[in-house]
Amino acid sequence: MEKDKLAHIRHTLAHLLAQAVKGHYPDAHLTLGPAIDDGFYYDIDFPNEKPGEETLSKIEKTMRKNLPAWKEFTHKEVTKEEADEMFAGNTFKLELINEIRDRGETITVYTCGGFTDLCRGGHVENPAKEIAPDSFKLDRIAGAYWRGDEKNPMLTRIYGLAFESKDKLDAYILQREEAKARDHKKLGKELDLFTFSELVGSGLPLWTPKGTLLRDLLDGFVWELRQKVGYERVDIPHITKKELYEKSGHWDKFKDDLFRITTREGHEFAMKPMNCPHHTQIFARKQWSYREMPERYASTTKVYRDEQSGELAGLSRVRSITQDDAHVFCRTNQVEEEIGKIYDIVKTFYGTFGFTLLPRLSLHDPKNMSAYLGTEDVWLSAEEELRNMIKEKGETPIEVIGEAAFYGPKIDFMAKDSIGREWQVATIQLDSNMPERFDLYCINEEGKQERIVMIHAAIMGSIERFMSVLIEHFAGNFPTWLAPVQVAIVQVRENHADYAKSIESELNKEFIRTEMFDADTSLGKRIHAGKATRAPYVIVLGDKEVTAHTLTVEKRDGTKEEVALDIFIENILKEIKSKS
Amino acid sequence: MEKDKLAHIRHTLAHLLAQAVKGHYPDAHLTLGPAIDDGFYYDIDFPNEKPGEETLSKIEKTMRKNLPAWKEFTHKEVTKEEADEMFAGNTFKLELINEIRDRGETITVYTCGGFTDLCRGGHVENPAKEIAPDSFKLDRIAGAYWRGDEKNPMLTRIYGLAFESKDKLDAYILQREEAKARDHKKLGKELDLFTFSELVGSGLPLWTPKGTLLRDLLDGFVWELRQKVGYERVDIPHITKKELYEKSGHWDKFKDDLFRITTREGHEFAMKPMNCPHHTQIFARKQWSYREMPERYASTTKVYRDEQSGELAGLSRVRSITQDDAHVFCRTNQVEEEIGKIYDIVKTFYGTFGFTLLPRLSLHDPKNMSAYLGTEDVWLSAEEELRNMIKEKGETPIEVIGEAAFYGPKIDFMAKDSIGREWQVATIQLDSNMPERFDLYCINEEGKQERIVMIHAAIMGSIERFMSVLIEHFAGNFPTWLAPVQVAIVQVRENHADYAKSIESELNKEFIRTEMFDADTSLGKRIHAGKATRAPYVIVLGDKEVTAHTLTVEKRDGTKEEVALDIFIENILKEIKSKS
Repeated sequence: MEKDKLAHIRHTLAHLLAQAVKGHYPDAHLTLGPAIDDGFYYDIDFPNEKPGEETLSKIEKTMRKNLPAWKEFTHKEVTKEEADEMFAGNTFKLELINEIRDRGETITVYTCGGFTDLCRGGHVENPAKEIAPDSFKLDRIAGAYWRGDEKNPMLTRIYGLAFESKDKLDAYILQREEAKARDHKKLGKELDLFTFSELVGSGLPLWTPKGTLLRDLLDGFVWELRQKVGYERVDIPHITKKELYEKSGHWDKFKDDLFRITTREGHEFAMKPMNCPHHTQIFARKQWSYREMPERYASTTKVYRDEQSGELAGLSRVRSITQDDAHVFCRTNQVEEEIGKIYDIVKTFYGTFGFTLLPRLSLHDPKNMSAYLGTEDVWLSAEEELRNMIKEKGETPIEVIGEAAFYGPKIDFMAKDSIGREWQVATIQLDSNMPERFDLYCINEEGKQERIVMIHAAIMGSIERFMSVLIEHFAGNFPTWLAPVQVAIVQVRENHADYAKSIESELNKEFIRTEMFDADTSLGKRIHAGKATRAPYVIVLGDKEVTAHTLTVEKRDGTKEEVALDIFIENILKEIKSKS
Repeated sequence: MEKDKLAHIRHTLAHLLAQAVKGHYPDAHLTLGPAIDDGFYYDIDFPNEKPGEETLSKIEKTMRKNLPAWKEFTHKEVTKEEADEMFAGNTFKLELINEIRDRGETITVYTCGGFTDLCRGGHVENPAKEIAPDSFKLDRIAGAYWRGDEKNPMLTRIYGLAFESKDKLDAYILQREEAKARDHKKLGKELDLFTFSELVGSGLPLWTPKGTLLRDLLDGFVWELRQKVGYERVDIPHITKKELYEKSGHWDKFKDDLFRITTREGHEFAMKPMNCPHHTQIFARKQWSYREMPERYASTTKVYRDEQSGELAGLSRVRSITQDDAHVFCRTNQVEEEIGKIYDIVKTFYGTFGFTLLPRLSLHDPKNMSAYLGTEDVWLSAEEELRNMIKEKGETPIEVIGEAAFYGPKIDFMAKDSIGREWQVATIQLDSNMPERFDLYCINEEGKQERIVMIHAAIMGSIERFMSVLIEHFAGNFPTWLAPVQVAIVQVRENHADYAKSIESELNKEFIRTEMFDADTSLGKRIHAGKATRAPYVIVLGDKEVTAHTLTVEKRDGTKEEVALDIFIENILKEIKSKS
């Protein structure tokens, strides 16, 4: 089903919901009811009795009962006076009608199944035929201010889910439940990965030892892949004079998102919202010969964006964003090779975690050349280069016309996680704008200045956001190389402490991360606490193990195995090394 | 010689200088002439002819000629009117006289060798006997605004150097010359370690690949030492709500030094000038049992201070300061052991570079107990603990009464560098204030809340400042494990390229850092460029080496050796591993 069709179904269902609500609550005032990503909602003013969650199934039944009569949508244009009369007493609709009139637009009402609503259209033609009665479901009730403004009255929002079929609806509900169980905010706390402090502020995560370890391992992995293909680390401050962003053009574009500072001497500074302008200043420190190109600079560093409090969510949207950022400064004839290297890193990195990667090629819009820098020839050849490069990797990108940045085409990657959700992850972006603005060049074979290009090449992008995806992807059950606790050691009784400690010390010698569970509680509780770390291996040590000098190792899947220490160490080290 | 005596000598020499200047320039107006760290100066207004650098030796000779007559200082109190008459025509002295009068203080003039000056005293009694004529030297001339204010007239400042003896003077001059040759700003550029950008701003260094590598190696070394004794890394944002610093008390104390931010929603934020308050918020995320203590958090992270432009100097004083910071949260009975561990790290770290470390114990002032938190008993026992701990390490600290922080005693380390300069480096600080303010505790054996203490434990402190010291200490000739280029490879002719590349590739396999010098210039220039990297080893490859399959290796001291590749690799790896 195409995307528009589904949106039309959802919008139609908002009408159907409105009719059902009016049936149960004749005094209710309808306001606005749009389609949304997973269904629809309708914001309704209930002057007297309000429906509770328990009434949703009743309303849903009424919707299903009414649906067969919804055979055809008709619409007509009405005058302002007619509209005012139709919606008399509903101050919300009257406000909307006034606004339509003020914009000089036509006022339309849509009718189906005997129910009429103020509407701009966008429905399916024959709802009874086109909407499966089991493909939607009322979901929940929430409060919502009229038009999202807290100065306005609070309305009741009824959410519904709607998909192409019952199967898709069920799959979505299952995925959502699964996602809820995996919620990174919940798991982050349980696994003690990060915390927030009211004194520090929202959107500013504080990373605990275990969370920091995870971040460092991920960043180390990216660095390992980068180092092999000639990247070097550079280090930059988190602030800059305003002048840098005036020159880069970011000041105009991002002014409102910047944390801005006025120094004691009255100078205007800003915290960096990205790293490229700083990196250009390192490149620009000296003159480069073509023999020295490319230069590849990587920095894992935080950028800051003044997000609105309401937009912040766990690690998915934060104010302090750690980027594993890198920029390649190269000649035009080096672009294909350099982008190819980044492509391989992205594939290897996301592949290691079992994400399915879908590349997307964002192209210029030939009908709108004035929106882009450079001639169409240059664009076509740059795009063809990227296309060939991806094909050589044995992949077929989805091509999206008009999605390129104004200064160059880009490759975006979507990653599908373990419960089927898709996330926009890495982006490889070609940039001829920044080198132009900062006058970056190398001296070529003819001894002349040659304008270079930049490639933006973050792999994780925001480490915070990537961590949120990763935690949910693994439901906290990280592979051994990433697990903050790799081996949980539980001793059965006090007198097994020496053996337990000797085991721990042998593991630690090999840098295997352990946690000892010897608290003064019941054995059951100790084992439970050990497993709660989500360690891939839990070792319970009792008389038998002490006597036989072996280990009983339990994996996450519950399988148990008796094994000698040296074999266990050998296996776990192999597993860590292979990142499996 | 005690410190005061030397200051008296220097102040006396300022008088002697003034007399000599008046001899040569009778119309000169004397203003102020104090003792300074390495000698003295006098700010003088020359209404007509001004002395140049070339006249300094003439004035110096006159000082030496006059010195024998300076046998005794006499002084007398004078009235405002008498003073005004004595210094009639000298608006600067008249301004000073007015101020002394306004403060209600006595006006005194001091006379020696027939020369009288307005002065508060602080001289040696018998200059002719107490000052060796060869222990001082006029140094240089500079401009200086009257009283340091650019709105005032520009005066001529004559600087002199003065020490206890000619030997000490000569040693100082030599050290200063040596220091100039080692200047980290100059070497930093030559070795391409860091750069500044006018667009980013002063005091905000940008670290190049080579400089970043050095920083990372140093930080990695500190981490290696910390990890062995149970430290864990945590990660924190660079900003916070104002509330954190109101609670910690830093808002009041550091308000002016903070980079402050007002968010788009109107909240007050600040960039962190230190990390302890953030670390407390990580500790405070959960309740701790005594069995889990201590917690040791380390973060290498930048702090920001709004320094005045005029105060900034290379890497010595910057606005973006990277700290290798750590805080130990522990019980009172764990303090000695934990501080002992940090002490060992400091010794090992600084010892590795050949710095001589002088520990100093900063104590409370028993005459001023009201300035401190806690009872004298607690102080005495905490100090005794630190004293014993240092003595157990076989050291005798210099004890400084009254230098403790108000919440606890501390250990400061002075490091003496390769040319004899002393730098204040690491500080270990005991802190019971922060845990009090943030209500940090653990649950002790009795199940009760027990207030814990914090230990502040940065090793390098500011990595920028430490790098400035280290660059000058080694004069850029870093030991092999730190050298950005460990082996410079120079090929004699084009046809040696293959052999050169095979050597490079073998070295790179072992992570030995190389740079190839194959530019299209003369062999001499290539060798020069190779040596300019200050690589500990320069390899020149020509016919002989290609035929014999050997290397000719030149060390920094110029000694050359012919050696097989595998032996060379074995030796250099041993050297790197031992950090020698």
